[in-house]
Amino acid sequence: MRFVMPQKVKFKHCDPAGIVFYPRYFEMINDCVEAFFDEALECPFEDLHQDGGVPTAEISVQFTAPSGHGDRLELALRCTRLGRSSLGLETEATCGGQRRFIATSTLVWIDGNGKSTPWPDPIRAKLDGWVQRAAA
Amino acid sequence: MRFVMPQKVKFKHCDPAGIVFYPRYFEMINDCVEAFFDEALECPFEDLHQDGGVPTAEISVQFTAPSGHGDRLELALRCTRLGRSSLGLETEATCGGQRRFIATSTLVWIDGNGKSTPWPDPIRAKLDGWVQRAAA
Amino acid sequence: MRFVMPQKVKFKHCDPAGIVFYPRYFEMINDCVEAFFDEALECPFEDLHQDGGVPTAEISVQFTAPSGHGDRLELALRCTRLGRSSLGLETEATCGGQRRFIATSTLVWIDGNGKSTPWPDPIRAKLDGWVQRAAA
Amino acid sequence: MRFVMPQKVKFKHCDPAGIVFYPRYFEMINDCVEAFFDEALECPFEDLHQDGGVPTAEISVQFTAPSGHGDRLELALRCTRLGRSSLGLETEATCGGQRRFIATSTLVWIDGNGKSTPWPDPIRAKLDGWVQRAAA
Repeated sequence: MRFVMPQKVKFKHCDPAGIVFYPRYFEMINDCVEAFFDEALECPFEDLHQDGGVPTAEISVQFTAPSGHGDRLELALRCTRLGRSSLGLETEATCGGQRRFIATSTLVWIDGNGKSTPWPDPIRAKLDGWVQRAAA
Repeated sequence: MRFVMPQKVKFKHCDPAGIVFYPRYFEMINDCVEAFFDEALECPFEDLHQDGGVPTAEISVQFTAPSGHGDRLELALRCTRLGRSSLGLETEATCGGQRRFIATSTLVWIDGNGKSTPWPDPIRAKLDGWVQRAAA
Repeated sequence: MRFVMPQKVKFKHCDPAGIVFYPRYFEMINDCVEAFFDEALECPFEDLHQDGGVPTAEISVQFTAPSGHGDRLELALRCTRLGRSSLGLETEATCGGQRRFIATSTLVWIDGNGKSTPWPDPIRAKLDGWVQRAAA
Repeated sequence: MRFVMPQKVKFKHCDPAGIVFYPRYFEMINDCVEAFFDEALECPFEDLHQDGGVPTAEISVQFTAPSGHGDRLELALRCTRLGRSSLGLETEATCGGQRRFIATSTLVWIDGNGKSTPWPDPIRAKLDGWVQRAAA
């Protein structure tokens, strides 16, 4: 099971070569994670950041083909691994079926003091469902 | 041998938690590579992008400690591997000796049509020197 | 007649005070103009920038109230003045009826050499309709 | 008397036309104000934002000539007007003597609750000096 976010490539994303400047992809990935927490977990970033956060601990990306201005990307996120306070994600961007990048990352649930802390049960239950069905 | 770029953390880099929003780190990494090509290789981005480029093919980053507004970071870049048309880089950011992130990435030299192409000899010679002295 | 673009305030837009960092508003304004050219004028930015552009010649913004993370903004754009090669715009952002900013700007239609040039007739005809109905 | 900040135009600032994407200019302006508060007023943003801020209430910019990748800009800031809790600024960017943009803006000193509040005396004294000598 994948969480899908459409993302058209806009003027602001592109560099002098007319393709996406790669740091902008990380803003798209963050937007996708933010939408996933909001829509799939019912845990909006604007609420959870009142007293905690989900910083990215590590991320690896392979950029397999460039994206041009106007391309209609689809970012698809899967939950690959659930730890005590961590979450493994895979985010793939495609355009018309062609892979543009694939990212693997690890998030950590932290409290208001910046310390990693166990996922709250209601969120853990939902994430567990996403991990179970990641292959589906 | 390392190429070092100082980077103070500014207001624009920071998120609601008062720490660097991680996509901004990739802008810093890109700035560091741009400064390296300009100052160390005498191959400024504004010239080389007239008829080619050096897109990032892959990048992996571990964020080991958060950076706050006002922190004086030091980004240190080493050349770890020179291929026919590729270059392996390691970029470490520290503040007062504490590691904030470490990134490994691969760049590719491309021509004006977006195809990978061998490094020009003068640039290859300089890069070879940086790789030889990476451990120094 | 107004062209309306919804825009939720995301994590990436916000500063350490938890409100929108004002340069991000200009990205929203640009996105709104890009969507207007695409959807209302059927003149997508990715096509028109092949051989020209519509740079902003001047812009004035009053920020009347801050926007917080999660706020559901509505950007509403009106065409206020059509010149030989220029276009006057007013873009107002509101949230739940409260004004957050109001911007007045002037765009210029330029050719591939960066020179201002008259609006093509089909675009002029559409823009003229938007200006006529700006008060409606 | 002007406060001057050099700013080379980098890859990240440029759009598909190879010139500065105008929202990036507002990041430069913010960087210049941040440097002015740090270096000229000895009131670093990282300190003052612990319990207040200096949001921009309004800004007007005329973009008089485009800036290309690699251009070495100079941003020059003057203090034009000091109010009870406000400050008028003029920021001009030039390259080799040619004006690229001129911005006039108004900042407001606010407390931790977001309310405008009088400038602290030591900052007011310094700002007053800058306003007195703005024409010099």
